[in-house]
Amino acid sequence: MDSAVVSNIKKPVGVPEPTVRRMPKYLNLLKSMQKEGDLFVSAPYIARLQGLDNTQVVKDLAYTGITGKPRVGYSIEELILALEDFLGFNRKHEAFLVGAGFLGSALIQYQGFKESGMRIVAAFDIDKQKVGKEIGGVPVFHLEKFRDLASRLHISMGIISTPAGAAQNIADLMAGWGIKAIWNFAPVTIKVPDHVFVQDTHLYANLAVILNKLTHPAK
Amino acid sequence: MDSAVVSNIKKPVGVPEPTVRRMPKYLNLLKSMQKEGDLFVSAPYIARLQGLDNTQVVKDLAYTGITGKPRVGYSIEELILALEDFLGFNRKHEAFLVGAGFLGSALIQYQGFKESGMRIVAAFDIDKQKVGKEIGGVPVFHLEKFRDLASRLHISMGIISTPAGAAQNIADLMAGWGIKAIWNFAPVTIKVPDHVFVQDTHLYANLAVILNKLTHPAK
Repeated sequence: MDSAVVSNIKKPVGVPEPTVRRMPKYLNLLKSMQKEGDLFVSAPYIARLQGLDNTQVVKDLAYTGITGKPRVGYSIEELILALEDFLGFNRKHEAFLVGAGFLGSALIQYQGFKESGMRIVAAFDIDKQKVGKEIGGVPVFHLEKFRDLASRLHISMGIISTPAGAAQNIADLMAGWGIKAIWNFAPVTIKVPDHVFVQDTHLYANLAVILNKLTHPAK
Repeated sequence: MDSAVVSNIKKPVGVPEPTVRRMPKYLNLLKSMQKEGDLFVSAPYIARLQGLDNTQVVKDLAYTGITGKPRVGYSIEELILALEDFLGFNRKHEAFLVGAGFLGSALIQYQGFKESGMRIVAAFDIDKQKVGKEIGGVPVFHLEKFRDLASRLHISMGIISTPAGAAQNIADLMAGWGIKAIWNFAPVTIKVPDHVFVQDTHLYANLAVILNKLTHPAK
C-alpha cells in the first residue's frame, strides 16, 4: 500500500496525451470521494477503481507535482486542486461554437462541462431559424459576425459542430481570427496552421467501430 | 497514379481499429464525389484529401475486398457499397439509450447517424419530467422498463449518456439483458463481461486535452 513512489517531474510540459486524458477521470473520482467525506486516497485504490495499473496512476499523478505520503497516500483536497490547475479547469476558457444544430445545442447545454472552466459564450449558424435566438442562454449569431466578435473578445477556443462539408471553411475562419484550439465534431479531417491545435471527436468513427463489431463479431 | 496495389485480405477479421475509424471518412468523401457526378477515384486523390499516406489508403480499402484498377482507380459506386457493407451500415442496428439529458437528446436527434443504419428506438430515464415524453419521435420510458423491453425486442446495442455515478449500474443492466455493444459517454471507466464490447466517447477527456494545451502552450 505504499503509494509514495515519486517522480521529479513538476511541470506539465510534454505530458503524454493518454495521461492528460486520464486526468479528468481521476478528478471525477476524487471529487466523489471528497463528497463522501474521504480525506486521503492511495494510488492502488485509484488504480483498482479505474481499472489501471498502479505504476501508471503514480506516474500520471506525479505530473501534477503532488506526491503521496507513505501509509497515508494523497491528500484528496490537495490532489483535486493540483489536477484542476494542471487541466486548466480553474481558469476561464471562453469558446465560440459554430453549427447550432442538435449536437451544437447539446454541447452548449451540456452540464458536464461546467466544472471545466470552459464556457461557450456565443454560437454561430447560417440558418435563419436559429440566428437571433438563444440556446440555454447563449446567443446564436449569424456566421458573418464571427470575425468581428472573435477579434473583439479575444476568443482562443473554437468548436465546430457543422456538417462535414462546411468544416474546413470554418476551421480557416477560426485559425484566421485568433482561435488557438479547435474542437472538431465534424466527421472530416480539417487542416490548420501549425500554431493551431485540433482535437477531433468523431462520433461517426466511434459508431463505426461499434457497428463493425456488431456486424462481424468474429474476433 | 497506380492505385491498383492489391491485398488478398477479403474479410474484415482482425481489421485494425484505426482502419475501421477511417472508413466512415472514406465513405463520406466518396458519397460527396458521387453527388458531384464522379464515377472513379484514385487512392492518391483520397490520400491527399484526407491528409493520409497513399499506402495507408490502399491498405485500408483492401479490407473492403474492393481493389482499384490501374489508371482508372476505384469505382466509386462499388466502393461505397463495399464500405457500407464493411461498416454494417446497410444493416439495421437498433439501440436503447439510457440518460435522456441534453447529450442523450442530441444523440437521439443527431442527423449524422441516419445513414449508419443505427437507430435509437427507445430512451430511458428516471426523471419524471422526461418519462412518458418523446424526443424526436423516440419514446422515453422509465428505467424500470429496460429489462422487459430489451429482452422482448432483442436489442444488441446500448448507449449510456447518464452522469458518471449511474454509468456502472446501467452497464451491468445492459450486459445482463443481452446488450452486446455499449457506447459509453459517461466520463468513467465501466467494467463489463468479456463478451460485451465497449466504445468510450469521453467528451470530458477530449476537452481536457484542449484546455491543457491552451493553459500550457509550451510544447
